[in-house]
Amino acid sequence: MKSIDLNCDMGESFGNWKLGDDEALMDYVSSVNIACGFHAGDASVMRKTVDMAARKKLAIGAHPGYPDLQGFGRRSLQMSGEEVYDIVLYQVGALMAFAKASGTHLYHVKPHGALYNSAAKDPELAAAIARAIFDLDSTLVMVGLSGSHLIKEGIKQGLKTAEEVFADRTYQDDGTLTPRTHPKAMLEGEDAAAQQVLQIVEEQTVTSLSGKKITVKADTVCIHGDGKNALAFAKTIHALLRGNHVNINRP
Amino acid sequence: MKSIDLNCDMGESFGNWKLGDDEALMDYVSSVNIACGFHAGDASVMRKTVDMAARKKLAIGAHPGYPDLQGFGRRSLQMSGEEVYDIVLYQVGALMAFAKASGTHLYHVKPHGALYNSAAKDPELAAAIARAIFDLDSTLVMVGLSGSHLIKEGIKQGLKTAEEVFADRTYQDDGTLTPRTHPKAMLEGEDAAAQQVLQIVEEQTVTSLSGKKITVKADTVCIHGDGKNALAFAKTIHALLRGNHVNINRP
Amino acid sequence: MKSIDLNCDMGESFGNWKLGDDEALMDYVSSVNIACGFHAGDASVMRKTVDMAARKKLAIGAHPGYPDLQGFGRRSLQMSGEEVYDIVLYQVGALMAFAKASGTHLYHVKPHGALYNSAAKDPELAAAIARAIFDLDSTLVMVGLSGSHLIKEGIKQGLKTAEEVFADRTYQDDGTLTPRTHPKAMLEGEDAAAQQVLQIVEEQTVTSLSGKKITVKADTVCIHGDGKNALAFAKTIHALLRGNHVNINRP
Amino acid sequence: MKSIDLNCDMGESFGNWKLGDDEALMDYVSSVNIACGFHAGDASVMRKTVDMAARKKLAIGAHPGYPDLQGFGRRSLQMSGEEVYDIVLYQVGALMAFAKASGTHLYHVKPHGALYNSAAKDPELAAAIARAIFDLDSTLVMVGLSGSHLIKEGIKQGLKTAEEVFADRTYQDDGTLTPRTHPKAMLEGEDAAAQQVLQIVEEQTVTSLSGKKITVKADTVCIHGDGKNALAFAKTIHALLRGNHVNINRP
Repeated sequence: MKSIDLNCDMGESFGNWKLGDDEALMDYVSSVNIACGFHAGDASVMRKTVDMAARKKLAIGAHPGYPDLQGFGRRSLQMSGEEVYDIVLYQVGALMAFAKASGTHLYHVKPHGALYNSAAKDPELAAAIARAIFDLDSTLVMVGLSGSHLIKEGIKQGLKTAEEVFADRTYQDDGTLTPRTHPKAMLEGEDAAAQQVLQIVEEQTVTSLSGKKITVKADTVCIHGDGKNALAFAKTIHALLRGNHVNINRP
Repeated sequence: MKSIDLNCDMGESFGNWKLGDDEALMDYVSSVNIACGFHAGDASVMRKTVDMAARKKLAIGAHPGYPDLQGFGRRSLQMSGEEVYDIVLYQVGALMAFAKASGTHLYHVKPHGALYNSAAKDPELAAAIARAIFDLDSTLVMVGLSGSHLIKEGIKQGLKTAEEVFADRTYQDDGTLTPRTHPKAMLEGEDAAAQQVLQIVEEQTVTSLSGKKITVKADTVCIHGDGKNALAFAKTIHALLRGNHVNINRP
Repeated sequence: MKSIDLNCDMGESFGNWKLGDDEALMDYVSSVNIACGFHAGDASVMRKTVDMAARKKLAIGAHPGYPDLQGFGRRSLQMSGEEVYDIVLYQVGALMAFAKASGTHLYHVKPHGALYNSAAKDPELAAAIARAIFDLDSTLVMVGLSGSHLIKEGIKQGLKTAEEVFADRTYQDDGTLTPRTHPKAMLEGEDAAAQQVLQIVEEQTVTSLSGKKITVKADTVCIHGDGKNALAFAKTIHALLRGNHVNINRP
Repeated sequence: MKSIDLNCDMGESFGNWKLGDDEALMDYVSSVNIACGFHAGDASVMRKTVDMAARKKLAIGAHPGYPDLQGFGRRSLQMSGEEVYDIVLYQVGALMAFAKASGTHLYHVKPHGALYNSAAKDPELAAAIARAIFDLDSTLVMVGLSGSHLIKEGIKQGLKTAEEVFADRTYQDDGTLTPRTHPKAMLEGEDAAAQQVLQIVEEQTVTSLSGKKITVKADTVCIHGDGKNALAFAKTIHALLRGNHVNINRP
């Protein structure tokens, strides 16, 4: 029987501000990436989110980002590789403490937002992140954009890696994501996204915007947790996969 | 031969702002308490300070504080015990990551500033801190004001504790520190402070402001690293202790 | 015809986090207190909220708080009077800039959360706030808890003041608010709150928890904008007042 | 008699961290650019710095930067023009409040660090800054790199502008600053810098690294206040200018 890992960003509330229905979403995914306080999340949110994920036996990962709460880590900040190394160690270490206190441990690290995107293209940042993860715990899995420098540098560093694809993003003929500035960057509708995920699992391909079938390597599929229909979206994908005899399993 | 642990707060620079001559001071103490980014320190400062302390084979401790950079963690913030538990776990976890990456490990945790003072008097906060330390790593030593609730709750929780006295603070007849608002809260002069430390080591007593000898339990003596004469002060204490055949040893 | 000012805290979103349906609520109140970035709000939220309020011709006020985003300004921070003076000037000045750029001006200042509560009881903090407002613009109205030190110090300083009561809080026999820790601190139901507001307007009294009628001075009534039913609540109060020939007017 | 404006960045302390000897430096310059809390400075530092500058009758300007305390505003952050507009209004408004409370007013605005550099090259950011200044107070002078987009957009917007040159930076043949990555980006020695300033004032030229004389427009000359020798440096420039009958005057 086939199986796939579904991951979702979580723990993105902050203080009095709530974001996402983490508890409900956790029933439909196998891995969670938990914000570490720099772009979202705070110490209390981290503890609660780790505890919930531990109870549901999900793979718990750290989701470190740029230090930019107001921009939600979505704006690139001109940090050196060394500075990125430092903030990744800091954030993953902080989350690791909650995992330990909860009697569990971290399984993976996935950079967030602008840090994820910058590191996908920039070997120096990618290497800094890989080194931070390795120096902290060489058994941690590094999650990055499929085929990106994050994956390459993770492998070079000796880390296990997980190549990520997106349920609701469209792809170009060369296998890259359609830029968000493009009007068709997002797949419209839960069903289209669910079908894309199914095709990824069954054929290891996606159909590009122009209609070509492209091979993609997908160890994990990201579904977004912060939109209005995030829960319905997760349920649809979950149902379609299970209906087609695909297990949703942490890796 | 007698011995005592001398500890000093370090890693209190932040970004472009430098505070204290950590590198030089490290030659005269046996333990360092490293700020964790909430009241001082940042990820890069933490890495450098941990690396320096590791090279000098000092006992490395976390120095978590209230989230108040502008107030340097010296202003009390009305947090619940649960919130304090969370921010202590977060900060100690972050520093632990740098220790691991540096090939070493944390030895102790000492709360900073207003958090230290509040927890000395408030059993609920003290218990929250003790629980956070225990849940993260039950072998960590909790450092607190000698005779305070921090020590009591640490013991209740099953932690090793280290009772702390201050080289340059004066004491009341009941063994408590003279409040900082009092004109004679601070011992004047390096020699007076050095003599006080020597007396603590040799007799386990301090002489109160009114002239009485009071018994104090001292597992570690704090010397301050942020004043103008911090280095001269450390050298004087170090020299007097060594001249009197007292070793300065991490515990 | 009678009239009353209804005020509501607004602009409490921050970056990616949304809080309250400000736009809809603005149709049912006459004054808004806009967060200034320390406990909530950011520069972009401030601009948008000021612009909206200006278009709807509401009285625009600054809502300065303690520097504590994660605690939403609801935790007391041990700041001196001078420090409070400084952060009030800073925050009100920042909001004033958006008012000027929007072609309008500030009408009032109302401290937020823990700062409001601390200053209600502490004459030194109250005086610091009053002095900051006066030094910036002596025509600004200071809004504070009815009968509190904030009001007294505002008057001493020579400011116009507006005494505030709460639509949904219960009162003690001595005219003070029932502490939030009390199970009956909040009035249950929109209708009870609306009735309390009507009684305040028509009789200048509230009925205490024990059933006594107490005289209250009310220049403005606060309705909360951040609960689930905030909009329904505002509509109910608005409708009851208008049905009883009470105008809802900015002062 | 010739005259020039000497400006210096000030108010860059933060909380417990001190930076620069502002009080001493103020005797050797005519204009100060005061940090506004985003990259440096806090409300208390702002008040004290404004008060000092007002007593010394210096031209007081706002020095808004990116929201990046840890990076001291020296790292570019990918903000939109609209976001930059908002944070400039916010910061200048906050400083304006201290000027008003101090019985004085702002004279100019000079963006800081990475914001200054980004806006020098990027017309959209430059226009956003110009518009924020204009919308707040159209009589404010916008200070920017001589010949840069900041100056162009300021003029387009209808603002008075002041073209800035640097005492201690070297220049390329095309009149641009030698990039900081270049080994000779900085002029070595106080005397060389003082001579460069004198030549700027007397001839409106600088000598480029390759030895060419280049015409520069200089309404104001920046001297740095944060290096070790900042004070000696300011004194040297001041003495050379006065010895050559050049007045140091706010514009």
